[in-house]
Amino acid sequence: VTGQQLGNVQIYKYSEGPADALPVCLTSPTVAILGSGDFARSLALRLVASGVRVVVGSRCVNRIPSGLFPDAVELRNQEGAVSQAVCLVFMALFPEHYCSLLGLQSALAGKVLVDVSNAAEMNIHGLSNAERLAELFPNSLVVKGFNTVSTWELQTGAHDGSRQVLICSNSTEGKKKVVQLARQMGFHPVDMGGLSAAREIEVAPLRLLPSWSGPVVVTFLLFLFFYGYGVLLGILLPFLAQGHNAFYRLALDLVNESLPAVALVTLALVYFPGLFAAWLQLWSGTKYRRFPSWLDNWLQRRKQLGLLSFLGAALHGVYSLCLPLRRISLHRIVNTEPWDELGVWRSELYLSCGVLGLGVLSLLAVTSLPSVGNTLNWREFTFVQSGLGYIALTLSIMHTLFFGWDFAFHIEAYPFYMPPSYLLAVVLPCIVLVCRCFLLLPCIFTRLTRIRRGWESKQHPCSWCN
Amino acid sequence: VTGQQLGNVQIYKYSEGPADALPVCLTSPTVAILGSGDFARSLALRLVASGVRVVVGSRCVNRIPSGLFPDAVELRNQEGAVSQAVCLVFMALFPEHYCSLLGLQSALAGKVLVDVSNAAEMNIHGLSNAERLAELFPNSLVVKGFNTVSTWELQTGAHDGSRQVLICSNSTEGKKKVVQLARQMGFHPVDMGGLSAAREIEVAPLRLLPSWSGPVVVTFLLFLFFYGYGVLLGILLPFLAQGHNAFYRLALDLVNESLPAVALVTLALVYFPGLFAAWLQLWSGTKYRRFPSWLDNWLQRRKQLGLLSFLGAALHGVYSLCLPLRRISLHRIVNTEPWDELGVWRSELYLSCGVLGLGVLSLLAVTSLPSVGNTLNWREFTFVQSGLGYIALTLSIMHTLFFGWDFAFHIEAYPFYMPPSYLLAVVLPCIVLVCRCFLLLPCIFTRLTRIRRGWESKQHPCSWCN
Amino acid sequence: VTGQQLGNVQIYKYSEGPADALPVCLTSPTVAILGSGDFARSLALRLVASGVRVVVGSRCVNRIPSGLFPDAVELRNQEGAVSQAVCLVFMALFPEHYCSLLGLQSALAGKVLVDVSNAAEMNIHGLSNAERLAELFPNSLVVKGFNTVSTWELQTGAHDGSRQVLICSNSTEGKKKVVQLARQMGFHPVDMGGLSAAREIEVAPLRLLPSWSGPVVVTFLLFLFFYGYGVLLGILLPFLAQGHNAFYRLALDLVNESLPAVALVTLALVYFPGLFAAWLQLWSGTKYRRFPSWLDNWLQRRKQLGLLSFLGAALHGVYSLCLPLRRISLHRIVNTEPWDELGVWRSELYLSCGVLGLGVLSLLAVTSLPSVGNTLNWREFTFVQSGLGYIALTLSIMHTLFFGWDFAFHIEAYPFYMPPSYLLAVVLPCIVLVCRCFLLLPCIFTRLTRIRRGWESKQHPCSWCN
Repeated sequence: VTGQQLGNVQIYKYSEGPADALPVCLTSPTVAILGSGDFARSLALRLVASGVRVVVGSRCVNRIPSGLFPDAVELRNQEGAVSQAVCLVFMALFPEHYCSLLGLQSALAGKVLVDVSNAAEMNIHGLSNAERLAELFPNSLVVKGFNTVSTWELQTGAHDGSRQVLICSNSTEGKKKVVQLARQMGFHPVDMGGLSAAREIEVAPLRLLPSWSGPVVVTFLLFLFFYGYGVLLGILLPFLAQGHNAFYRLALDLVNESLPAVALVTLALVYFPGLFAAWLQLWSGTKYRRFPSWLDNWLQRRKQLGLLSFLGAALHGVYSLCLPLRRISLHRIVNTEPWDELGVWRSELYLSCGVLGLGVLSLLAVTSLPSVGNTLNWREFTFVQSGLGYIALTLSIMHTLFFGWDFAFHIEAYPFYMPPSYLLAVVLPCIVLVCRCFLLLPCIFTRLTRIRRGWESKQHPCSWCN
Repeated sequence: VTGQQLGNVQIYKYSEGPADALPVCLTSPTVAILGSGDFARSLALRLVASGVRVVVGSRCVNRIPSGLFPDAVELRNQEGAVSQAVCLVFMALFPEHYCSLLGLQSALAGKVLVDVSNAAEMNIHGLSNAERLAELFPNSLVVKGFNTVSTWELQTGAHDGSRQVLICSNSTEGKKKVVQLARQMGFHPVDMGGLSAAREIEVAPLRLLPSWSGPVVVTFLLFLFFYGYGVLLGILLPFLAQGHNAFYRLALDLVNESLPAVALVTLALVYFPGLFAAWLQLWSGTKYRRFPSWLDNWLQRRKQLGLLSFLGAALHGVYSLCLPLRRISLHRIVNTEPWDELGVWRSELYLSCGVLGLGVLSLLAVTSLPSVGNTLNWREFTFVQSGLGYIALTLSIMHTLFFGWDFAFHIEAYPFYMPPSYLLAVVLPCIVLVCRCFLLLPCIFTRLTRIRRGWESKQHPCSWCN
Repeated sequence: VTGQQLGNVQIYKYSEGPADALPVCLTSPTVAILGSGDFARSLALRLVASGVRVVVGSRCVNRIPSGLFPDAVELRNQEGAVSQAVCLVFMALFPEHYCSLLGLQSALAGKVLVDVSNAAEMNIHGLSNAERLAELFPNSLVVKGFNTVSTWELQTGAHDGSRQVLICSNSTEGKKKVVQLARQMGFHPVDMGGLSAAREIEVAPLRLLPSWSGPVVVTFLLFLFFYGYGVLLGILLPFLAQGHNAFYRLALDLVNESLPAVALVTLALVYFPGLFAAWLQLWSGTKYRRFPSWLDNWLQRRKQLGLLSFLGAALHGVYSLCLPLRRISLHRIVNTEPWDELGVWRSELYLSCGVLGLGVLSLLAVTSLPSVGNTLNWREFTFVQSGLGYIALTLSIMHTLFFGWDFAFHIEAYPFYMPPSYLLAVVLPCIVLVCRCFLLLPCIFTRLTRIRRGWESKQHPCSWCN
């Protein structure tokens, strides 16, 4: 008997293996869930929807309101539920209560116990919850898993099957069963190895955008620097020296002056570590020497830095479009200046460079979306991220240089003997661009390509330039 | 013999199980397709591309133009095709013609029949196509599936493997074979349980954005209200009272006046049901009481409401930037007003709040993309959707309040004794924000957290405030 | 013994089949990697992370810096590594060096050799690397695969499991093992058939956006045409005839004049082939006649054309918003013209059509993202792409026509007897729209629907209009 109709839910075995290999599970593949909280409820919903028969075991069955669980779910006390489950028992309780189940030790022996708990906090020492469970129930097969899935995803189902379920266990047999069940539930199980990986899996739901903290801090510090510099140069000094009140510029003008500087420097920071790595490889004459870990970290944060640069550039674009709004709404525009052909060229050029640069950056941002990036092969990805990236950098630099025009050569551009902030911002990007151009010189390019194909310089690292 | 070369297509068994478990299928894993329509053709293409041997059975083989099917496909009459298929037969005919195959009943006995048909309309009663098929061929294993995949996806292949194939059947054995075949074809099979789920699967391709209809209607009604209010207050009443003709404002000005009001109220509607649920939980002292279904529905439409709010805000932004275009292109700008420091502060503040609010809303919209949302854990998702969401709401309210400045305290802001529409729009968002702040009060926050961890108030629901 | 703890990595069998079916692999599932380059290192990292025991075989083990491979990896010479691998050997060397392994022929006999190499260039004739490998080691089971995965993806893991691994082989047994291993590593294996598909798989990483080249060239040529036409009409002819210098318009004005024309014509090109296909089906009275291959190609490039059209429209929007910036920053605005009610209506109408058209196009662009498109069923996809698409086309045409107003009926609009470029641009879109409306006529619509459901006209193809 492999399929029986119960209510409107079809019950069948969840094993994909042949029938004779797992004789006991086949005849009664009921899965038990211990606990009646949110997670237990959502898990029961998903399991029932995936065609699995579910028994929920609770300490106080009578207090569970009717209708909380779907009709196809059987409610029992903990002993009853465990005795019905032949293979799999989900432990949907707080890990503090694991020891209250010690009386069921013999009933749970030989069964797969799935620990679905999260870590209480980020940095705790000692055993993970799953390892503690394995110690308490040495005769059961403890598998860690499903804690990375939210109750919401359990209820709605991961309809595109892209939601992964991280799993680990010391028991191959237990892991295999949980993998099959996860797949049947529409998830994508990912094997993380032995139970020692449970710590990492339990902590995963507590992470808060770890790859973003560094780039966000850097970008924020850059913003503070340029904003502070702007306040000093554009507001404080004029106010102190000439009593000129321009504090209204704090809200919009100065932000819009700092944002492009931040975006430009951040974009340069995206391409800087790659150049650094290339020069390091050229210097050491091999690619088999590992990069220092700060460089590795930096290389892995390039995507985040690039997206933050895009954010800054986009905000700069919108602010720039908003500024004339204020002037117009205040009707402060007068026809005072004569036609200035050179001035027109300047503004036409810096505007088009800016718009095109932002456009190219948008393409980069779009290919950073996981679903778009997944459709590109490595060559296409490199073409977009590196090729188009340098085009965006070049356009942004041209945007700044055309904006600056020849003013940098006049003394009026240096009030209080300090350069304007866009001059500061353009320094690092120019260095990156020049270094990149050097790498394109035939003699260096050939050597780098050879190194990256695995060739190693036998000579002294420094002798290659001779 | 498990693999033979035929043309340039490799033929091999599609079973993943061990060879001895399915002896017959192994030696000749040919799959038959009955029907020669678009779906049959695309199915044949995909199967051949996945290395499966295919026989197509058609009532009138001779009328099929050569070249319609790939060369590796064998064309036969229906009897011939069925006799070649050892395990699997796809029924790619209109369900009206199922009964024409009754003569093949014995030839089809014991084989897996895959029903790939869609429902004719959304609401029909009686049996689903697959259930009717199962009645007609009681000795075959009927599996419902593949109807949710379009011919286009069959032809091009679901290259990222994220396209799901919904499957249901009363036969575990049949389901297992179809699951394996779907996986081999590069799809993601999702088990939906017994054949009674066929109705739902057959109707799935007829759905037309069901989760969007409610939010779109609400947003549209809000737009109608604010637009109508604007027409009345800004055009009709001045025209009737003073004969002032401002009908040109219908196309752009009034739309741009209504859009932000709609966006703001819709954004408040996103966060309103969450607050409601929190208060309900506080009131009842437990989280185990189910929410009323209207609240459940509302909670599940928050993403759609949020995206519609973003759409409104983005359109408002573009319109606002476009309006000066008209004025400038008509050269109607004159230098009439003196420098107004306070006015400058006002516009600087409401513009920067608006731009920043729109920027934060854009981040929310980006994380609503499935591929981005899938990379976030629950904590990160909550941080972005709830944390950043309330920041966006606050910025939007500040944008409106700075725009309003102190005009609301002057009688001129109330022509015809009616408040301006932005004042109407800001009411609900302010209520939401205030309620949210109340929830952050320590005594309430602690209680709510305890309730959400599973604690239940034993007291009378109402007594907790004492 | 199915699981042993080694370091902090759990070792277990990667077979999903029952234990008794694959006795040798079970007891020692070690996988060997020959080669010590980047790919070998990343592969080893991923395999170890997935719980597989790995031996790396290198010609010169001593030269490998310590720390290059993870600790759990055993380093051996090539013979040693092969002797440890019971089932699977990855060939992570350059294909030029395959013959250097001929001495290991007997040690490799019966084992699965995975060829992970890329093709050296796009168009080479002769055998693929994998086929050459199969010739060199006739007693091994050669499987092609993993070359489409980058070292980066190997190191970080395809966390959402959406990264596909293309696999082909003449050996079913070998393919099954590699499929299981790929799945265990978190990838999505896609079976491409026999080893003759290896050429295609080896070339895949060299592709550079093949589906984009055609649409980009077409769009670029359209841009060149409209830009050249604009230069001639707006700059060269006035300069030659009247000495009027307007060369400053080259950078921004003319680009912004050409972009909408390009976007509009490209959008028409998206819907043109669909109409053509419909008329072809109506004419031939059947849908079973294949379209000519140019039409097939065109139909498959519609998404790319649509996205390029969106890019052009978005840039046009930003440029249009930027232009007033220049005028304002130069203070060239004067109050010269009187209030012109008709002119106001014109600008209001063309601006709102433009903004709405761009908004609808944005929705189309968003649903073109793979992860969004995957959540839509065919009906929803058609509704968005065809329904909303025609709305965008209609709005864009109205935008252009309102912009043109009644100027086209005055002789001044035709300087040098040449029409303005927006008139040229609107011709094809109007034709597309009119043809589409004809298809909606009841008699034609019914016939087309019947043809698309499979009905065939028995009459002479031309007689249906009578």
